[in-house]
Amino acid sequence: MSHIAELIAVGTELLLGSISNTDGQMLSQGLSALGINVYYHTVVGDNPQRLKAAIELAKTRSDIIITTGGLGPTCDDLTKNVLAECFGKKLIRDEESARRIEAYFKALGRSVTENNYQQAMLPEGCTILANDWGTAPGVAFEAGSIHVVMLPGPPRECRAMFEHRAVPYLKQLADGEILSRSLRLFGIGESAVEQLLREEMNAMTNPTLAPYANEGEVELRITAKADTQAEAQSLIAPVEQQLKDRLGPLVYGADVPSLESVVLEKLKAKGLTFGCAESCTGGLIAKRMTDLPGASAAFRGGVVSYATQVKHTVLGVPEDLLEQFGAVSDPVARAMAQGARKVLGCDLAVSATGVAGPDPDERGNPVGLIFVALSAPDGTWVRELQAGGIRERSRTVAANHAFDLVRRYLDGLPLKAT
Amino acid sequence: MSHIAELIAVGTELLLGSISNTDGQMLSQGLSALGINVYYHTVVGDNPQRLKAAIELAKTRSDIIITTGGLGPTCDDLTKNVLAECFGKKLIRDEESARRIEAYFKALGRSVTENNYQQAMLPEGCTILANDWGTAPGVAFEAGSIHVVMLPGPPRECRAMFEHRAVPYLKQLADGEILSRSLRLFGIGESAVEQLLREEMNAMTNPTLAPYANEGEVELRITAKADTQAEAQSLIAPVEQQLKDRLGPLVYGADVPSLESVVLEKLKAKGLTFGCAESCTGGLIAKRMTDLPGASAAFRGGVVSYATQVKHTVLGVPEDLLEQFGAVSDPVARAMAQGARKVLGCDLAVSATGVAGPDPDERGNPVGLIFVALSAPDGTWVRELQAGGIRERSRTVAANHAFDLVRRYLDGLPLKAT
Repeated sequence: MSHIAELIAVGTELLLGSISNTDGQMLSQGLSALGINVYYHTVVGDNPQRLKAAIELAKTRSDIIITTGGLGPTCDDLTKNVLAECFGKKLIRDEESARRIEAYFKALGRSVTENNYQQAMLPEGCTILANDWGTAPGVAFEAGSIHVVMLPGPPRECRAMFEHRAVPYLKQLADGEILSRSLRLFGIGESAVEQLLREEMNAMTNPTLAPYANEGEVELRITAKADTQAEAQSLIAPVEQQLKDRLGPLVYGADVPSLESVVLEKLKAKGLTFGCAESCTGGLIAKRMTDLPGASAAFRGGVVSYATQVKHTVLGVPEDLLEQFGAVSDPVARAMAQGARKVLGCDLAVSATGVAGPDPDERGNPVGLIFVALSAPDGTWVRELQAGGIRERSRTVAANHAFDLVRRYLDGLPLKAT
Repeated sequence: MSHIAELIAVGTELLLGSISNTDGQMLSQGLSALGINVYYHTVVGDNPQRLKAAIELAKTRSDIIITTGGLGPTCDDLTKNVLAECFGKKLIRDEESARRIEAYFKALGRSVTENNYQQAMLPEGCTILANDWGTAPGVAFEAGSIHVVMLPGPPRECRAMFEHRAVPYLKQLADGEILSRSLRLFGIGESAVEQLLREEMNAMTNPTLAPYANEGEVELRITAKADTQAEAQSLIAPVEQQLKDRLGPLVYGADVPSLESVVLEKLKAKGLTFGCAESCTGGLIAKRMTDLPGASAAFRGGVVSYATQVKHTVLGVPEDLLEQFGAVSDPVARAMAQGARKVLGCDLAVSATGVAGPDPDERGNPVGLIFVALSAPDGTWVRELQAGGIRERSRTVAANHAFDLVRRYLDGLPLKAT
């Protein structure tokens, strides 16, 4: 039987436009990867009557109802109370959840207030989705032919709870096994991928192939449905190989979280250390490296040389280079990367210098012009980019290219020698 | 009469999670500013039956229905056809729209295809919302007591069409003005705010008061409704003052985007420069400063001293301090901040050193133990935190505290001298 899922997001802040319903997008992608069709998204405010009406409607047209939000103490656990009522479930105190809440607040050095304990009142007979990323536990239960899953609203919590708690629960409902494999690409845009693979994508039914654009990168998702995981895997494998052959070094990994995680693994495998010198990216490269647990095995540190003088005093970029070519230039990017290697005492160092905006620099270099460099024992390589006028995006793109230089170097792929 | 608006977004790509419903957020903000209450968002796919059902439901509960998407030739003008049917309107060809479509394609150097002309078929008696940002014209009509507005889906088009075409149309319907003011708090949790202000919040009707938790901070939103902006403002002002008196230095700003933006403005106002030395935050403090356009006016740079040796070689932290107390300690946090001031040549510098996890450090310091410090010409101050075991959160909390130290210093608020 094919399931129909409906997402119900609860929160007046969504209706006021204070926040966007990013949970809806994340869950839609995830459910789609599980082979579960999503037919409706609904957003209602923190209002019991309207939430109740939305649930009653959902019961008539969907057999998987997933709610987000309305679980914290500030909304009096609205969602849980209304859902319990709609499905005739009693709420009873779960001691394990109460202990988790105590432990969470203790770890934050705060004391538990009485309303925090309300979160431990859960529908009888439900499956508790333990929340290791916040305080409100998630809940799943079955009522007749309908499956209900309640997740917390904050996007970070919602994503972790979905991936680690809801997916294993929902997988039992899928008829057959769905397996996805995600190829991560760097160095090609979504429309180019689309154009390149349009025929294959249209012709394929199992597995299917779909591209997703994400932060200046493209993800290609291969999804197969079969009776067993092994069968699904054997449907995916040849398509994966074919795509890798066709796309070559554009593919930087399969089922990997990010470019920097691939770089970190490769550095660790080769026992090499890494550092960075950042101007326009302003700490983003270092931040992304240190977002990864275990980064300290390879990452020694970075210098954010935002002011021109710091490029000279800390990184040792010669003053005449800065004067002759300006801070945003090929020679300065090169000298920054070389300086970082020396100052930080690491095997490889990258640099980024560019015009993040809002205005062109004093030499008239346009917003979005960026140089990234990699310095290694056997040479230094520079890439010049035009990353466009949106500050956040141009910084992300610059960091991506810096990591891509390292990835290609470590894979022995050709880099323009300079 | 108070209006109830409902947003209906049409597009299978929303249900697959390929794109996020950013139109919904943009329209919610815009309608809220017009004093129009939005009670529901609904998303349906490119499916006439389900769209029809959504419209029939909306007719029973809302008197302003705004659709986004489903207007272009790729979806056969699904939305327009279904809406016309639901409200019993005939479609007739609008010559002016046909001419605009021709002109648009001519400007792109393309020829008009027959299905492009379908977009010029419009419900009889409607108000045409001319589209200067794309091809599909928007449509508004009245049917009994219900107002219908159809807008194109692509976010850039949708925003322009809303601001320049829909707002003037909707303004005629608005009964009064809505004004919001957002107080930003640091140093108190959401449930504590809730407990502190629960009585006031429950007693207030206009303005209303609601707390929102966000990345370790709390936002308190005061929202008033009145005939004019000035009246709404006069309802908000005394509540705002009362809250500021009551919460004191916990309030760091009103209608400001972030703690770091407040810090940057204060630094610029005093003509002071700023820098940082980061270990556990790994570049996050520098990254958040440089997320702000114009940061270069005050921010000189930072050192990410992730490896212990870099704390000594680049920041000049004495080796015996590192040996005696370990990298995660009060004396090392202090020496890092002092070193950053000197190395970067700035007036104020902050530092953060802690155990980001996943494991305790080699001295057995627990995950989440963090020291942040501020060094200024007249002293150095250190805060010890227990930020919990979630890596991303503990880093965010550490950066928040670093910025809070600077904010309090610049405001002349008491800091524990050490």
